[in-house]
Parts: sequence; structure tokens; C-alpha cells
Amino acid sequence: MNTSNEKATLVVFSGDLDKAIASFIIGTGAAAMGKEVTMFFTFWGLNLLRKPEQVKLKKTWIEKMFEKMMPRGPEKLGLSKMNYGGLGARMMKAVMKKKQIASLNQLMEMARDLEIKMVACTMSMDVMGIREEELIDGLEFAGVAAYLADAEDGKVNLFI
Amino acid sequence: MNTSNEKATLVVFSGDLDKAIASFIIGTGAAAMGKEVTMFFTFWGLNLLRKPEQVKLKKTWIEKMFEKMMPRGPEKLGLSKMNYGGLGARMMKAVMKKKQIASLNQLMEMARDLEIKMVACTMSMDVMGIREEELIDGLEFAGVAAYLADAEDGKVNLFI
Amino acid sequence: MNTSNEKATLVVFSGDLDKAIASFIIGTGAAAMGKEVTMFFTFWGLNLLRKPEQVKLKKTWIEKMFEKMMPRGPEKLGLSKMNYGGLGARMMKAVMKKKQIASLNQLMEMARDLEIKMVACTMSMDVMGIREEELIDGLEFAGVAAYLADAEDGKVNLFI
Repeated sequence: MNTSNEKATLVVFSGDLDKAIASFIIGTGAAAMGKEVTMFFTFWGLNLLRKPEQVKLKKTWIEKMFEKMMPRGPEKLGLSKMNYGGLGARMMKAVMKKKQIASLNQLMEMARDLEIKMVACTMSMDVMGIREEELIDGLEFAGVAAYLADAEDGKVNLFI
Repeated sequence: MNTSNEKATLVVFSGDLDKAIASFIIGTGAAAMGKEVTMFFTFWGLNLLRKPEQVKLKKTWIEKMFEKMMPRGPEKLGLSKMNYGGLGARMMKAVMKKKQIASLNQLMEMARDLEIKMVACTMSMDVMGIREEELIDGLEFAGVAAYLADAEDGKVNLFI
Repeated sequence: MNTSNEKATLVVFSGDLDKAIASFIIGTGAAAMGKEVTMFFTFWGLNLLRKPEQVKLKKTWIEKMFEKMMPRGPEKLGLSKMNYGGLGARMMKAVMKKKQIASLNQLMEMARDLEIKMVACTMSMDVMGIREEELIDGLEFAGVAAYLADAEDGKVNLFI
């Protein structure tokens, strides 16, 4: 059995590139230190998990609107500040590449390799009309109770 | 006496509808699991606690400005993203209603029934010129020391 | 040796005045209660630590752009909401002064007096092209592993 020092949970509420990068740097860092890490993606955070290509599905018009207007996957996210219609995000990605810092896509692969438990919030999926087949592979699907069960076993619990 | 697994605290700094919903879903979820939950409302988070009707009070012009410009209660909050002058918030509320997901008002009633301790930050009230009689019933009024005293007894401590 | 009740860590990701004030009120409050506090400044949070005056350094054009466009120190920060081009921030500072609430500058001095460990995130500094000589004195420089090592020893861990 794990002691509480060995668990960490992150609620990823934000769909901004900068906060997404911060989430995965903390998450992969904790996992690399040997912690059991759960990342729980909810609301705009679900956009990080969307497949880049459109999946044809029957949806209501409001669901279609959410689908169209929200960014589809890590490549499409903007910054929380100084985004300037995507220019800021492109600049930050260019700098990170030049300085050989892992991109969000690479961090997400690392998260998978480190066996971070990535959970998509089913209630948010329901509200936003996002279906399992629109999200990347390797996820778990659960609600807030599952998140809380993980959180109560660790001391590093953040809402991002 | 409670062990640390049995307490949770949420600092609700944000006054956005989506973050407010997330706060109360986590808060009521934790309380339903038997945890003692404290929600500490500070800065824009105080707007969740405002009564919908205006209360006539003597105020400075800056206090009157804050009073006028900030949303008065859960029905008036906007989304943190894609709000489009309130259209986004209305769409999200419509979807939640159709899918029979509890509204923010209902979540707040659940919080009361579950005996969640809801605390309004007195320093923020002072800065924003908000008085006790402008806020809903059933609140406690305290500062950061009271929050920290609760937080140090639990492991699930989030800033939202 | 410290028990976990005696440590607190804050990740200060945001560069907004209101969130900066909240961070330092929680941080100094915890330190005043006898806790060992670490504040880890990353991404936009680094702007809180910038010296008000420009330091002449050789930089790439992207680094120069970040340097120019980001606020230089506590006096230049805006509010996360209702900033109106700086008017909101000025109003909030005026109210706080009138009500004799400590300003961000004073809170930062208190943090120093209370021996709060203030750490600048080296990876963010690298991405944004910020150098040690551009930041205020008394900081430590470290990465996410140092933050996590502190966080796992405490229960009050917030992402702001």
C-alpha cells in the first residue's frame, strides 16, 4: 500500500496551452519521482484530450457548436495571456522547440510512458457533448467521486 | 477527532460560472463522501454569495462602482471562456438543464443541506465594499487564518 | 524534523495583481502561523519578481518581445477581471491603501521578513528569456523537482 507521500492528483480544468504545459510538467515530474499520479480533465481541460481530426457523430446543434468552437487537441490551444489570436502560442512553441524543451505533445507521451492515470470527466463530456471516440486512446472515464478517492490518498492535489 | 482524510477546503477566488460549478461539484461530492468541507469565498468568488436583489446601503463611489459592475449572484455569472456577452453562460445552463444536471443554485442548496461550511473572506468584503446584509444567509465571516486552520487538517486543498 | 502540518507550498503561475495579492496573503498568513512556506513562481508569476527598472542584456528578438510586453514588477500588474486597461488595478490599490490593507509590495517585504522561500522556476525563465539579474534579490532558482520535494512534505499545496 502507498503512503500519502506517494500520490498526486491534478484537476486540469483549463484548456490553455501554458496551463496545460504546467500541468504536464508537474505531473510527469511527480511520476518520475515515483509518485502515482492521476490527472483529471474536466471542462475546458477536455480539449487537451481531443483527437486532432473530426469524428462524424450525431449531435444536437449546441453540441456541434461546442465541437466547432473549442480547440481540438494540444496543437490548437492558445495561451491564457498574450495569445494575440494564436501568435503568442506559436511564439512560445517556437521558443520551447529552439531551447529543446519538451512540447505539450511530447509531455503527454511521457505521461503515458510514466503510466500517469489520465481520466476524462464524464459529466463535462456530457455537458459539452464530447464522446469517447473523439478523445485520444488510453484514457479512463469517471466522475468526481473517482477523483476524490484518489485525491484523499495524496498531499499534492492541485486545481489548474 | 477527524483524521486528515476527512477534511477538504476550497478557496473559491473565481467568480466565473464554470469554475463556480466545478467548485460546488467537488465540494458537494466530498461532503457526500462524509468529508468535512470548508469553502472560502474570496475576491470575485464573493459574487457567488450576493443576493440577487439590491440592498440600499451607504457606500463610497468606488464601492458603488464595484457593486454595480460585479455580477449579483449565481444567475448573473459568466463563463471564463467563450462567454460571448453571456450567450455562452446561457447555453451552458440550457444544456445542463436539458441533461438534468444540477444547476449552480441547486448545487448551492445541496451544499447547505450537506452542511458545508461556507465562509466569506472579510478582507475581500472590505476591499470591495460588500456588507454582510448583501450576502445570502447561512455564511460565516472570517479571514485567512481561519481558512488556514481548516486547510492544515486536510489533504484535499484547492484554489479555484 | 517538520511534520506535514508545518509546510505549505504555493505555485504562483498567474501574473495578475489580484491573484498575486491572494498568494501573498495566504503565504504570509501561513508563515505567521509558524509554517515553512515555499512560493514557486512560474510562467506569468515570474513578472511579480521582476525589477522595476530595465536591465540591459543581450537577448534574441523573441526574448526582447516578452521583456517589453510583460509587466515589470508588482506595480505594473493588472487585475484578472475588470482591469479596464489598468484602471481597475489602480482603483483596487487606492481602496486597499485607504483601508490600510498591506499593498503587494508590503506583502512581499513581509514574506521576506517571515523567511518565506521564494523560488523562480528556471525552465520558465529560460522560455521567457528572463535572467537572474533582472529579478529581485533573495530568490532561489530551481525546477519542478525542487518544488515537488517541498510539496510532498506539506498538506497545504495550492496552484494559483
